[in-house]
Amino acid sequence: MTVGDVTAEPGPDARTRPQSAIEKFLRVRELTDLLASRLSPEDQIPQSMTAASPAAWHRAHTTWFFEEFVLGGLPGYSSPEPIFRFLFNSYYEAVGPRQPRPQRGLITRPSVAEIGDFRARVDEAVVAALEAGRVDERGLELLELGCHHEQQHQELMLIDAKHLFAHNPTDPVYVDRPADPVAAVRGETDWIVVVEGVAQVGAADPAHRAGFTRDGGSRDGVSRDGVSYDGFSYDNERPRHRVWIPGGEVATRQVTVADWKQFMADGGYTRPELWLSDGWAAVQTEGWDAPGYWRREGHDVGSASGGASAAAAVEWTTFTLSGRRPVVDAEPVCHVSFYEADAYARWAGARLPTEFEWEVATTGWEARDELDPDRCHPRAAAERAIGGVWEWTASAYLPYPGFVTEEGAAGEYNGKFMSDQHVLRGGSALTPAGHTRPTYRNFFPASSRWAATGVRLAR
Amino acid sequence: MTVGDVTAEPGPDARTRPQSAIEKFLRVRELTDLLASRLSPEDQIPQSMTAASPAAWHRAHTTWFFEEFVLGGLPGYSSPEPIFRFLFNSYYEAVGPRQPRPQRGLITRPSVAEIGDFRARVDEAVVAALEAGRVDERGLELLELGCHHEQQHQELMLIDAKHLFAHNPTDPVYVDRPADPVAAVRGETDWIVVVEGVAQVGAADPAHRAGFTRDGGSRDGVSRDGVSYDGFSYDNERPRHRVWIPGGEVATRQVTVADWKQFMADGGYTRPELWLSDGWAAVQTEGWDAPGYWRREGHDVGSASGGASAAAAVEWTTFTLSGRRPVVDAEPVCHVSFYEADAYARWAGARLPTEFEWEVATTGWEARDELDPDRCHPRAAAERAIGGVWEWTASAYLPYPGFVTEEGAAGEYNGKFMSDQHVLRGGSALTPAGHTRPTYRNFFPASSRWAATGVRLAR
Amino acid sequence: MTVGDVTAEPGPDARTRPQSAIEKFLRVRELTDLLASRLSPEDQIPQSMTAASPAAWHRAHTTWFFEEFVLGGLPGYSSPEPIFRFLFNSYYEAVGPRQPRPQRGLITRPSVAEIGDFRARVDEAVVAALEAGRVDERGLELLELGCHHEQQHQELMLIDAKHLFAHNPTDPVYVDRPADPVAAVRGETDWIVVVEGVAQVGAADPAHRAGFTRDGGSRDGVSRDGVSYDGFSYDNERPRHRVWIPGGEVATRQVTVADWKQFMADGGYTRPELWLSDGWAAVQTEGWDAPGYWRREGHDVGSASGGASAAAAVEWTTFTLSGRRPVVDAEPVCHVSFYEADAYARWAGARLPTEFEWEVATTGWEARDELDPDRCHPRAAAERAIGGVWEWTASAYLPYPGFVTEEGAAGEYNGKFMSDQHVLRGGSALTPAGHTRPTYRNFFPASSRWAATGVRLAR
Amino acid sequence: MTVGDVTAEPGPDARTRPQSAIEKFLRVRELTDLLASRLSPEDQIPQSMTAASPAAWHRAHTTWFFEEFVLGGLPGYSSPEPIFRFLFNSYYEAVGPRQPRPQRGLITRPSVAEIGDFRARVDEAVVAALEAGRVDERGLELLELGCHHEQQHQELMLIDAKHLFAHNPTDPVYVDRPADPVAAVRGETDWIVVVEGVAQVGAADPAHRAGFTRDGGSRDGVSRDGVSYDGFSYDNERPRHRVWIPGGEVATRQVTVADWKQFMADGGYTRPELWLSDGWAAVQTEGWDAPGYWRREGHDVGSASGGASAAAAVEWTTFTLSGRRPVVDAEPVCHVSFYEADAYARWAGARLPTEFEWEVATTGWEARDELDPDRCHPRAAAERAIGGVWEWTASAYLPYPGFVTEEGAAGEYNGKFMSDQHVLRGGSALTPAGHTRPTYRNFFPASSRWAATGVRLAR
Repeated sequence: MTVGDVTAEPGPDARTRPQSAIEKFLRVRELTDLLASRLSPEDQIPQSMTAASPAAWHRAHTTWFFEEFVLGGLPGYSSPEPIFRFLFNSYYEAVGPRQPRPQRGLITRPSVAEIGDFRARVDEAVVAALEAGRVDERGLELLELGCHHEQQHQELMLIDAKHLFAHNPTDPVYVDRPADPVAAVRGETDWIVVVEGVAQVGAADPAHRAGFTRDGGSRDGVSRDGVSYDGFSYDNERPRHRVWIPGGEVATRQVTVADWKQFMADGGYTRPELWLSDGWAAVQTEGWDAPGYWRREGHDVGSASGGASAAAAVEWTTFTLSGRRPVVDAEPVCHVSFYEADAYARWAGARLPTEFEWEVATTGWEARDELDPDRCHPRAAAERAIGGVWEWTASAYLPYPGFVTEEGAAGEYNGKFMSDQHVLRGGSALTPAGHTRPTYRNFFPASSRWAATGVRLAR
Repeated sequence: MTVGDVTAEPGPDARTRPQSAIEKFLRVRELTDLLASRLSPEDQIPQSMTAASPAAWHRAHTTWFFEEFVLGGLPGYSSPEPIFRFLFNSYYEAVGPRQPRPQRGLITRPSVAEIGDFRARVDEAVVAALEAGRVDERGLELLELGCHHEQQHQELMLIDAKHLFAHNPTDPVYVDRPADPVAAVRGETDWIVVVEGVAQVGAADPAHRAGFTRDGGSRDGVSRDGVSYDGFSYDNERPRHRVWIPGGEVATRQVTVADWKQFMADGGYTRPELWLSDGWAAVQTEGWDAPGYWRREGHDVGSASGGASAAAAVEWTTFTLSGRRPVVDAEPVCHVSFYEADAYARWAGARLPTEFEWEVATTGWEARDELDPDRCHPRAAAERAIGGVWEWTASAYLPYPGFVTEEGAAGEYNGKFMSDQHVLRGGSALTPAGHTRPTYRNFFPASSRWAATGVRLAR
Repeated sequence: MTVGDVTAEPGPDARTRPQSAIEKFLRVRELTDLLASRLSPEDQIPQSMTAASPAAWHRAHTTWFFEEFVLGGLPGYSSPEPIFRFLFNSYYEAVGPRQPRPQRGLITRPSVAEIGDFRARVDEAVVAALEAGRVDERGLELLELGCHHEQQHQELMLIDAKHLFAHNPTDPVYVDRPADPVAAVRGETDWIVVVEGVAQVGAADPAHRAGFTRDGGSRDGVSRDGVSYDGFSYDNERPRHRVWIPGGEVATRQVTVADWKQFMADGGYTRPELWLSDGWAAVQTEGWDAPGYWRREGHDVGSASGGASAAAAVEWTTFTLSGRRPVVDAEPVCHVSFYEADAYARWAGARLPTEFEWEVATTGWEARDELDPDRCHPRAAAERAIGGVWEWTASAYLPYPGFVTEEGAAGEYNGKFMSDQHVLRGGSALTPAGHTRPTYRNFFPASSRWAATGVRLAR
Repeated sequence: MTVGDVTAEPGPDARTRPQSAIEKFLRVRELTDLLASRLSPEDQIPQSMTAASPAAWHRAHTTWFFEEFVLGGLPGYSSPEPIFRFLFNSYYEAVGPRQPRPQRGLITRPSVAEIGDFRARVDEAVVAALEAGRVDERGLELLELGCHHEQQHQELMLIDAKHLFAHNPTDPVYVDRPADPVAAVRGETDWIVVVEGVAQVGAADPAHRAGFTRDGGSRDGVSRDGVSYDGFSYDNERPRHRVWIPGGEVATRQVTVADWKQFMADGGYTRPELWLSDGWAAVQTEGWDAPGYWRREGHDVGSASGGASAAAAVEWTTFTLSGRRPVVDAEPVCHVSFYEADAYARWAGARLPTEFEWEVATTGWEARDELDPDRCHPRAAAERAIGGVWEWTASAYLPYPGFVTEEGAAGEYNGKFMSDQHVLRGGSALTPAGHTRPTYRNFFPASSRWAATGVRLAR
């Protein structure tokens, strides 16, 4: 990882390679702006609950990340707007005090346009520094981390916008899209056998992969232990390590809306024996009787209405980023909490997979249904594929054996949240391309429902 | 906004008189838009606490009031945007369900521009109806009520904007203004004697005053009991009635910032014997140690700094609609709760006036320091004048003997809040002209500090 | 109020007169112990809500009051159990820190028996001091205050025990009593006219009455302004002062259970137009659909049940200190909040009386239905009488003009609660004899229902 | 409590074998009564926080368990006090509704004496049924479960009593004991190596062990997979299964008070970088600056006090079941939350062990320092031993692969709490003998501090 005399006389390679980092950086930045462009300045302000953040804040916070960790490391750099450090730091204690989280929705100045200027200024400075070869190895690592960080916030910005719009009785449309053709729904799922024994899980050592490099040196793309890789990983996916996998089976497709309706029809939300204690308490406190955003639409169907029974007249809609729509049987169920996922599994005589059997079972499956800005909604559930909705696992979010955080303030990225949350695997229809990978560990508290979270069974 | 051929041949009177109502109506509406014009679309969205409302909501709600109560009474009228009835109804149960109060800050659609369109559409319709003579007597009363209602919301919009901006570490400036020249501060106040005996208080019967009239007939402007009047009054100011005034004295000027500093220096916020029980609990729960928006600015003053003592180096600033500024000794203290006003009075060996001795004592005093959109801040306290800051009284907010609410849903305007609040009298530097009148009864819970509330003593 | 040479050689008068104070003191103390004797040690421990207190605490706190204010004033007295000062001080800031109010239910030591010992020790010391003539004039005043204070706590101890027992599904019986014979219920009430004009209200100056005296000198029993008196009054009942009474009428009997059932049958708890805004919020938050402690008892009445309609089969019970019993039509309604009282009055086309018209109207009425330890429950409502249930008035609890608190820490007795509460007048079936007097001002927050609170109408 | 002529002519086996179950049962029941005997009736009533329960409730609830699950299974049995089923069911949804958990402290009737009668009645009935051979195989399993259940409640009763007493400023003493002689404190700990590889963990199949048997048939005491066992296990300890243990080291002794003082002296409670995010939030919200029950005792040490520095004058005490005592350096630290344990480990450059490496590492260690009713406090930390304080592990409380709950309502015993809690291993000085076993899984939320919880490091 030695670098040598970079600045003076870079060869043609050194001139082109960074371009790749610039391209990736700008592509990420542009997607954020594209996604935000469908939100008015007004839409970008509210924080609809403490766990959510305003779109303007997402846009500024991701920019701050680059200013703090990449530009901040450049000799002589100082921010022209130091107050942004206070406003747009999320939780990095080592960086200093910050706007209280529940008050992010009160930041109306800088304006949305000024946040756009902030983005442009930082983009320009980052690109200039990259072009000048002034970003060192650690800076490049942090640049890459910042790109992945911003991709995570792209997804958060979308689920937060959905949560906001769902509270607006005018049913705002984020993106219009035609209804899908009706897809066939298979009642039963197939199962894939996971063999008992020791398996290797987790992402390879980043020292052994090709990242954003300044010197353009090629990395081999294969780790010492023979597992191929070539992508980025977060610290929480590492180190790659051995686990004992008990024998079991994992379903080849996700639980669908049609499946969930059966659970509901069978009293799923009213039978305490199906639920974890905290889950049953949440059902009663929150009044859950269906997945998040679902709403029962009433019909006046008289008893003399002929073929259609009264029960058939109950129709469920759900709020989507294309407005309120009827639920679609073939789609994976979405916006369910861990507690609901767990209760469903118990009802089905099954269980949730651990994150490790999930990782083993889904090896080689297609990663599909990633973020399409013109759709922003899962497609019908597919066989032997991940994506569309995140999948709750039975595993708590804990550090892997030998877990080491990133150096410096960036070390607060993941590790300090390793308690009282559950691991989700896969990816959703709001997850930017590349993030739906076998070792990725998403995590939310057990009661969360505003992310695009669904269920896959094991047994 | 002229409408043209309205009804056949109105006589000259009918053409001119309503014009006066139109003019008043439009003047109120324009002031709201002027005040809002200094707030960006972003600024108009957040609800910084449940008791506050977004500026966009204030603008839409006041418009809804006219649509509901004036246009809604016209034969054949139906709103082109019925959802606004749900979104912008504040608390009128008789009108139907409405957006939950704590969720007003989530309404980003209709946009701020669309709310502007809503305002223009309703203005046009109201003016057209007035010009056509289609608004009946009751409609004209409600039109006048709506104008006063909107003026109240002008003040609310300003205190809510101040509350929002005070949470922004960039210290936004709503309106710039030069610092006032330093005013002399008199240490002592004079007192005016209020003689013991029966007095008449409250506003005269509206049937005996000149209001918005359709027929242009002149009203006499003098009530049966000989008290002159010519203005509007709310139902809660009526009926005019007799009370027994115990003898006493009322201070000729409001408590100033200089006065308040003495209270603080004497341990005012740390001595439970000065406080009502609920007040002392609030001091401890809320951590109050100075009026709302005040902040102690630190100075490093060494012990060898000569003439300036360490204590002198403590400087207080306060947040104003012109940004954060040093507190000004000669100004009336502002943003204090009832509990603080009461504790201050006890400390001063005095008490708060009742609303009735206040009304008697201030008869004939100048109403000054009303809303100046280019200032939005109280001037130095003056002798024998009301205005600048609202004045907490010792009186609970209760109905007058014989109180009768308005007819219909408008009856929910005032009466249903007559419990657990305290009366304030006078007016503030954010109160639109005309509202600072002797019989006006403002009211807030005892712990409120975000309105422009101050203190006048009695003894 | 001269005292003379008391200690040396008291004459025979000086030896006997104090006996009267001793007798009164001991009578109060004995009643407390009688009331507590029906509560087991276990029953005396819990604090069933923050506003309530354990019976053991009531017994110890009232004892502490005498130790602190009477014995504490004796030269050389020091408590053998100083920690009791911390444990059993209720809210006297001037006395020092104390057990946090919500943690009174955690005090299991001293034991109930040790609290009995504490009572006996203080009783003995007080009597000895009185017999020795060592209690000065101020001490005697505080002794008398302490007796009235303990009588208030007798009532509180009973309503708190009722609240505790009401949470026990075994329906404990505090005192057994036979059911009353069925009383006739008059549908309509009579009204007494209150004439418009100036009236004197409040209690006379204590300097002009016969209290607990050391020298036995007789006081004249008539105040300067010609109003007779001979009893004790709290500072909050004073000074006697003039008010203007608007003309009106006050009902000659309290609202009954039968009346309340009509209100309920007419949708009283479901019609927002009848309610104050805070009251309607309480209805929804608390789920109120009947007075406190009422419960609907189900019956399986088939449609073929003949004469008895399904509606008639609904029966209400209420929890009493004699266990759960059917509600009795002829009794005054009890355990209603101010909000309910106010809504009922609006429904009835009437209003609540102010505390002053109440005081004027009820002059000369019988004070009846005071505490009978063998009954502890109101009798059927009677004409032109007060007592049985406290009566909510329209008045907020505020100081009278010229109000002066007691000297020293005893000054915290009443005055510091003069905000955000409502005045109740009269007395209840749990009020010790002597407290049901025309000038007595009880007070509770508007949402309180655990005291024995009822309604009298005015119009 | 022997019953006499039960059933005709039992053979010698049948006479002796059940006796063993009877003896064990009665020994458990007697210990509960011994532990409760030091609590007065008053002490047995309060619920000092929602997570705690009154001692009277513990005594009744454990009795209800036997009545519900053992006696309830006998033909023809019906409880003479059916309301107890409502009052003393803890959380078994399948059994029916129950007293709300936060209201357990309001149950003053049945009295403590009546609860004693309830215990005696159930004991007699259980013994009679056992002697008569009327308890079937499942009943005997539930009897054994009930004994272990009651032992768990013995510990809970003690930590709840400690929590209650700690809120009493009189510092009640549950059991007196002399101070221990000062023990030497070793600064460093030794570490035991845990070898990487597959290990078997968990308890053996209950079908293969000797339990409470009706027929007296001997069980072999060795499971199919060769692991010896002879004791009871809960469902959550099973099934025995394989895990992959990463190589590591586990400390041979627990973290001591002396160790913890160093953490505190090094700013442990003020450095966010040491803490999990939720832990840091708890530090700030709860004001933690030392373990639970610790209190800083002030000293006035002037600067001229010679050898003793001001810092040395700070002394910490902690509340124990023998009253408030100085903290003892050689004892294991106790009453720390998972968050504190985790922060301490990070500060020490170590980590917490997983529950599996703990189980492997401590194999063969002495289980010591179990409940001694005359001590109720941990002894000095020892080498290669478990007990004294529970040890937080890095593991979340989740089901083992293949976990199966108990049949029927007893299935709610453990499984439904398997979310959002952390596993503790070992046992405490309040843990009844026999429970401090290698496979036992205790669990509490991460923020809990009222149990006797300490720390062992790994690395």
